[in-house]
Amino acid sequence: MFYIIGLGLCDEKDITVRGLEAVKGCSRVYLEAYTSILMIQQERLEEFYGKKLILADRDMVETESDEILRDADKEDVALLVVGDPFGATTHTDIVLRARSAKIPVRVVHNASIMNAIGACGLQLYNFGQTVSLVFFTETWKPDSFYDRVKENVDLGMHTLMLLDIKVKEQSEENLARGRKIYEPPRYMSITQAVSQLAEVEESRQGGVLIPEKTLAIAMSRVGGGEGQERIVSGTLAELLTQPPEAFGEPLHSLVLVGKRLHHLEVEYAETFAVNPESWRNVARTVYGCALD
Amino acid sequence: MFYIIGLGLCDEKDITVRGLEAVKGCSRVYLEAYTSILMIQQERLEEFYGKKLILADRDMVETESDEILRDADKEDVALLVVGDPFGATTHTDIVLRARSAKIPVRVVHNASIMNAIGACGLQLYNFGQTVSLVFFTETWKPDSFYDRVKENVDLGMHTLMLLDIKVKEQSEENLARGRKIYEPPRYMSITQAVSQLAEVEESRQGGVLIPEKTLAIAMSRVGGGEGQERIVSGTLAELLTQPPEAFGEPLHSLVLVGKRLHHLEVEYAETFAVNPESWRNVARTVYGCALD
Repeated sequence: MFYIIGLGLCDEKDITVRGLEAVKGCSRVYLEAYTSILMIQQERLEEFYGKKLILADRDMVETESDEILRDADKEDVALLVVGDPFGATTHTDIVLRARSAKIPVRVVHNASIMNAIGACGLQLYNFGQTVSLVFFTETWKPDSFYDRVKENVDLGMHTLMLLDIKVKEQSEENLARGRKIYEPPRYMSITQAVSQLAEVEESRQGGVLIPEKTLAIAMSRVGGGEGQERIVSGTLAELLTQPPEAFGEPLHSLVLVGKRLHHLEVEYAETFAVNPESWRNVARTVYGCALD
Repeated sequence: MFYIIGLGLCDEKDITVRGLEAVKGCSRVYLEAYTSILMIQQERLEEFYGKKLILADRDMVETESDEILRDADKEDVALLVVGDPFGATTHTDIVLRARSAKIPVRVVHNASIMNAIGACGLQLYNFGQTVSLVFFTETWKPDSFYDRVKENVDLGMHTLMLLDIKVKEQSEENLARGRKIYEPPRYMSITQAVSQLAEVEESRQGGVLIPEKTLAIAMSRVGGGEGQERIVSGTLAELLTQPPEAFGEPLHSLVLVGKRLHHLEVEYAETFAVNPESWRNVARTVYGCALD
């Protein structure tokens, strides 16, 4: 059996009982290390499972799936994935390969940011498409996400923005010289995300992300419990005024609030507002939300 | 501490290790029994946890939250929820009440249909808003979902349709006589859902859900593993021709495929197609998907 097992969002205890049982019975266990990160180290997972993990980077999952699937028709092999196996990045490709090799596949689901983002208090069914925001450089500022956000905004839908993660990136110099030296991982911060949004609004002038009129909810370490998870709500302009440490440790996610907004949703996020009065005021006057 | 713990989608082993540890340490454990159903009985959960569960129906969670939260500032109390605590139905209300009573809250996330639906092979970030389809009666056929599906279709987004569940419903007679006798639970089948869609398209004539031109993926018991989970893909017209048992046991979910479709997504679902040739043909000619 080939297992693809979601690890959930935070640490070793977020695996399901079913997933843990499967891991313990596997002869080889791969840990996919590129789509996201857990908040803990590989060693802690290994200790908890009582198993060595084989680190599988993007290259390996994409190009060496034959090796990962080797003998999975005769013994149990697992690929561990942060979040859910069909979350932000799907694993359909390796499932298709397993199927064509007649290897039975079992997916063990878990929470991913795609559903746990509901912890911000907004109804998940009012979210539109999800967009990704990548690190801008001096010369490369891809802004096609703006059109997609506009589609959501026009319909009154909320938008989950996935913020860029750079893991196992090489500097241009190391890349050019063929040196397999990797830069430390980088995670886009809320501050950086919000200032990129302001930059794009400034150049596009589409009125989609006017900083003073757009409500947003910044989340860090969703599912991490008290002391880890942090929620900060406010207009984009208010979020920009906050010191970076106000948003907690990465990973960060950003939700842009759409106009299909219920007063209970406003109240829920108000607890976390930079300025509760302004939060309610924008919800009432810009979003047209009926509040007492 | 007040815990709200997601149980995931299928059975007792879908709880996370963190969730299980929390349950074992609680003095009272409530099982919310209305938003969805697990595929197993309460007794099996109780045996697995080594705890009695207090069944909490819709009334109780909404009107007796004080009782649920009683003493949660001094001891640990848990509310168990099928799926994720912020999945299809959020639990923001009881969290707000806990907060105002200064009771610490910990949410333990899990898979919900909102992310596990990715198992159909379509990219989650290309899903638009989620819609609910309720049982039609002779006199009540609410079709506002059609406008929301149209919004998704116009943008090329996929649509997750949540199919109606009737749990703890009373017959009109029992209701009128004040008898607390409840009907057996009812779950909308794929066949019923698809025929309701055809009925609405017929009356609306908006071209949104033309049965021969709309691709859909029917899923049952998502996350249930082999022998439980079932995936059937085809045009709505093809799904209508299938015998009800082709779709497996409830719960069912239905995904309407949008035009932002990648050839890998088409290939993935083709394995489960009523008619693979027609599946590819509609994907190519109606959806404009580039296939070999």
